[in-house]
Amino acid sequence: MALNGHQRDDETIDEDETPTKQPRSNKEMPGYFRNEPSGEAAAPAGRATSDRRSSNATTRHRSDSVKKTRPPFPWFGMDIGGTLVKLVYFEPKDITAEEEQEEVENLKSIRRYLTSNTAYGKTGIRDVHLELQDLTLWAATSTSPASTPPCAPLEGGAYKFESDFRTMADLQLHKLDELDCLIRGVLYIDSVVSSGPSECYYFENPTDPDHCIQRPYTLENPYPLLLVNIGSGVSILAVYSENNYKRVTGTSLGGGTFLGLCCLLTGCSTFEEALEMASQGESTRVDKLVRDIYGGDYERFGLPGWTVASSFGNMMSKEKRESVSKEDLARATLVTITNNIGSITRMCALNENIERVVFVGNFLRVNTLSMKLLAYAMDYWSKGQLKALFLRHEGYFGAVGALLELLHPS
Amino acid sequence: MALNGHQRDDETIDEDETPTKQPRSNKEMPGYFRNEPSGEAAAPAGRATSDRRSSNATTRHRSDSVKKTRPPFPWFGMDIGGTLVKLVYFEPKDITAEEEQEEVENLKSIRRYLTSNTAYGKTGIRDVHLELQDLTLWAATSTSPASTPPCAPLEGGAYKFESDFRTMADLQLHKLDELDCLIRGVLYIDSVVSSGPSECYYFENPTDPDHCIQRPYTLENPYPLLLVNIGSGVSILAVYSENNYKRVTGTSLGGGTFLGLCCLLTGCSTFEEALEMASQGESTRVDKLVRDIYGGDYERFGLPGWTVASSFGNMMSKEKRESVSKEDLARATLVTITNNIGSITRMCALNENIERVVFVGNFLRVNTLSMKLLAYAMDYWSKGQLKALFLRHEGYFGAVGALLELLHPS
Repeated sequence: MALNGHQRDDETIDEDETPTKQPRSNKEMPGYFRNEPSGEAAAPAGRATSDRRSSNATTRHRSDSVKKTRPPFPWFGMDIGGTLVKLVYFEPKDITAEEEQEEVENLKSIRRYLTSNTAYGKTGIRDVHLELQDLTLWAATSTSPASTPPCAPLEGGAYKFESDFRTMADLQLHKLDELDCLIRGVLYIDSVVSSGPSECYYFENPTDPDHCIQRPYTLENPYPLLLVNIGSGVSILAVYSENNYKRVTGTSLGGGTFLGLCCLLTGCSTFEEALEMASQGESTRVDKLVRDIYGGDYERFGLPGWTVASSFGNMMSKEKRESVSKEDLARATLVTITNNIGSITRMCALNENIERVVFVGNFLRVNTLSMKLLAYAMDYWSKGQLKALFLRHEGYFGAVGALLELLHPS
Repeated sequence: MALNGHQRDDETIDEDETPTKQPRSNKEMPGYFRNEPSGEAAAPAGRATSDRRSSNATTRHRSDSVKKTRPPFPWFGMDIGGTLVKLVYFEPKDITAEEEQEEVENLKSIRRYLTSNTAYGKTGIRDVHLELQDLTLWAATSTSPASTPPCAPLEGGAYKFESDFRTMADLQLHKLDELDCLIRGVLYIDSVVSSGPSECYYFENPTDPDHCIQRPYTLENPYPLLLVNIGSGVSILAVYSENNYKRVTGTSLGGGTFLGLCCLLTGCSTFEEALEMASQGESTRVDKLVRDIYGGDYERFGLPGWTVASSFGNMMSKEKRESVSKEDLARATLVTITNNIGSITRMCALNENIERVVFVGNFLRVNTLSMKLLAYAMDYWSKGQLKALFLRHEGYFGAVGALLELLHPS
């Protein structure tokens, strides 16, 4: 299952009009900030405390104007997952005089904080290449970064993090359902991206490493769609329309499993480090393949000799354990987790009779290895029936959907 | 997928009548021995070399009588998997004078070897508690051990092991399809076990640890049946009759993955050691649970707070890595592999509309922890619709089926 986000609680929608009201629950993300500075909130929470008094003041002042006009700037959408916080920020060009009067200082400070940095706190980073220009949301047009997402690993998960927001930064978060936001975000981003690299893409010739090429894909008439969100864990959704979907299943073997196991097996400490090791390793030294036992294919059931028969199956041998490298172990971990997700996804696609599968989530971040493995698995095992699709904004759809919920509550 | 056994090659059935013919392929197990001493063959192959010459002689001599009567004694069925060799031996009481004349010396030596030991070679063991008395096979009745299965871990898998048989012991193996043998063995053993502990059993109150009790189950009208064979890897079969079944799917995350990962993570070296560690550990320190992120349940999609959200998800934190024990890591590995199998099995049961699931394979050997986890998962997630069944002869059905093929080729 995916770990970011929370169950919907429609009651809290009302709180939109009463920003000084205390939250009824401590499960309130993803969502948007009531108080400023929102930019600070995604930095280590401690930093925000310095703005606490002014934030409170601004909140009370702004709450009056909110009732009359569009939601107060700044506009943020945040998705707090089991491992990462994903945050998108909409920076407006055309704001009213009143809004400018109220917000300009905060906007300035937020713009300064966001645009003058590409890193936030100890671990936050900014995906400048994912910024979208000239977007119009609720009659406001963006000029500069509409996507400036700091990612801050959370040790304790969103629950602990949300209470930090309240106690340290006096921020209230408005909770929304993560899967509603995810789907809304996917459909929105795909619809607004017109120029530049295509949002959606696939791999041509996925089973031929020498000719496997990334190609743009137009996601017209997207339904029905199988949406596989690979975060710390995995959720698989069958989407029949924007408002009609079901969570088919999920697996707890996701990105968190890959990173957790890699840290234990190789001593690495970051996702990027784990991926770099995996890119240099050879999983077939770690896994037991069909040909290792059968001496070839298991033809009757269509299992080629190169198929993994037992993941990590060679590691019960002391001799083989001593012959593998950390890179081999990282690669085997990546292949094991990725293929398990691919295998479960194929079963779901078969049962739901869906031929297009969109893979999203930050496990795929800078992880071409897994994307190609998934593309290969979908194509090979379905004999070309299943198409694996990917989206450039990988892990940000939940945050985008949260931002949209602020502007157009569903 | 399961790793023991090989695809059927009907041509080799003919070799039954021409035991001196060379095998056409080096993919020939599970099956039965043409030569003696079969008992030796399951001990480390090196031991068998001493009998090489006499074996040859016996083979050529016996091949004549084979044509006239039932197959030559001794009768063995063997299942060589990715990790273990499983061997069953039928010891006859009423053999013909001719057979006695021919076989008595070999029978004596085999009986001595098998019955005077409970361990074979370095790692082979004998499951005395699984022996079946007074069986009748092809007009022969057994008096003593009908099930005396040495288990010898194979580093290189069956392929390498089979060539050892030929070069070191001059033994030819008759290959059969592992899944055909598996199903035949399951149905046979369930049908002949009348006295003593019931072959088939389930767990009553699987979701209530305090009242979870093992109960006998009568496998009458067994079809349709979902048969989950958990060896080094996993195969899931939908069985509609003895001769009508299909391999629905499989996963490479099986017993070999559990043992391989445990060896890497804890430094243990045997399956029993890994299980002992797991029994003393706590997986919730290693895994990230739904409640760790949501602060409770994810009610909308029916995910309780205790559900694992990300297996090994806590291990990306240096602090948490330093706080867990080897026992915790072993437990988390067992829970991860077992729950993944349970989850894939539930999807198959749903798709095939089958309500009874029989779990077999040596991963379940002395592994009550996994059996109870599977029973819990089947019952809880299916809201009582799915019943998890287990069989006492766990990992021996492939070998039993191979023995039956010798006597009654299908």
